[in-house]
Amino acid sequence: MDEVMQKLRQFRDDRDWKQFHNPKDLAVALSIEASELLEAFLWKTPETADVEKVKEELADVLAYALLLSDAYGFDIQKIVMEKIERNEAKYPIDQAKGSAKKYTEL
Amino acid sequence: MDEVMQKLRQFRDDRDWKQFHNPKDLAVALSIEASELLEAFLWKTPETADVEKVKEELADVLAYALLLSDAYGFDIQKIVMEKIERNEAKYPIDQAKGSAKKYTEL
Amino acid sequence: MDEVMQKLRQFRDDRDWKQFHNPKDLAVALSIEASELLEAFLWKTPETADVEKVKEELADVLAYALLLSDAYGFDIQKIVMEKIERNEAKYPIDQAKGSAKKYTEL
Amino acid sequence: MDEVMQKLRQFRDDRDWKQFHNPKDLAVALSIEASELLEAFLWKTPETADVEKVKEELADVLAYALLLSDAYGFDIQKIVMEKIERNEAKYPIDQAKGSAKKYTEL
Repeated sequence: MDEVMQKLRQFRDDRDWKQFHNPKDLAVALSIEASELLEAFLWKTPETADVEKVKEELADVLAYALLLSDAYGFDIQKIVMEKIERNEAKYPIDQAKGSAKKYTEL
Repeated sequence: MDEVMQKLRQFRDDRDWKQFHNPKDLAVALSIEASELLEAFLWKTPETADVEKVKEELADVLAYALLLSDAYGFDIQKIVMEKIERNEAKYPIDQAKGSAKKYTEL
Repeated sequence: MDEVMQKLRQFRDDRDWKQFHNPKDLAVALSIEASELLEAFLWKTPETADVEKVKEELADVLAYALLLSDAYGFDIQKIVMEKIERNEAKYPIDQAKGSAKKYTEL
Repeated sequence: MDEVMQKLRQFRDDRDWKQFHNPKDLAVALSIEASELLEAFLWKTPETADVEKVKEELADVLAYALLLSDAYGFDIQKIVMEKIERNEAKYPIDQAKGSAKKYTEL
């Protein structure tokens, strides 16, 4: 992902956009892109969504997630691995297996 | 990211959750996590957000983005690189430099 | 709705919260509540959602929508009526009938 | 609001759209509109948002909130009043005054 991150930074800096990219607005942008992704599924079954739109909007979500990680100096592989470990404790296999309940309801 | 993706799949399969993970609900889940991330900034300046909460929620966003990519067989590095290239055309440097306007308003 | 609006203002002012309620953070709060509402449907069919949660989160969405309208001095009945009229032009009955397509695709 | 609700139902029924308006997709639509509203504030201060865009997107949010209420037969004034009462218990004035903390942190 280093190459992607470098390209994202260059795209931003070529346009002098770092001035707009404070973490709060990056989080707002990420949330907006996640909604645009969701729009690909609106009034549709999972199977009939427009795959090209899904691909493009998911790329936008990932781009802002990477920029936000970069703003805080997070290592994305590390933070996801740590979160999975925390979720393993919150959702023990014997209680969570086959259930879509939230951990607060298990 | 392959190791992370493998761990996400195993976490899901250990709990027999693939049955819930259709692309539409994954997109709904991603959008909900993006909002939880945004909540770390609510009523706050960018500087006073809770960094631990940002880290955890961003990990959740990334996890669902990876699972959704996996459901479609996308290569995440490739789709982000392609999107940056498309954005280079939509936001030419000479028009977009220093401007926060959307490409439709440039 | 005047009585509701008055009660919302009093709730806010009793807690001295107007200082936090700038329109941008109100819009962030509204978006977060809309996601919490959506969470009532996550991994579920429309029929199996928790109706009590839907009711509570929808009330939060409405509360922030009213507070945001109030911040701009909008008349909510008027703005919804005007939007319906605009949508009547964007979605002519003969083209839109029975179709879930966006107006840009009709 | 009765007149607005009646007009919304007629707009929907003239286009034969009730078939798409299950509560889950209405909640997805509401969440998408809340994000479009938020987009009016992206990269901006609260003061520099486009007020016309705020007005239009807020109208869309209200329209879907009304349609969702209608699907469940909720009385919107009643559910908001009840939620304010519940919030009065969650945020006692003496603890919440002047604080933007969530009730779980008070």
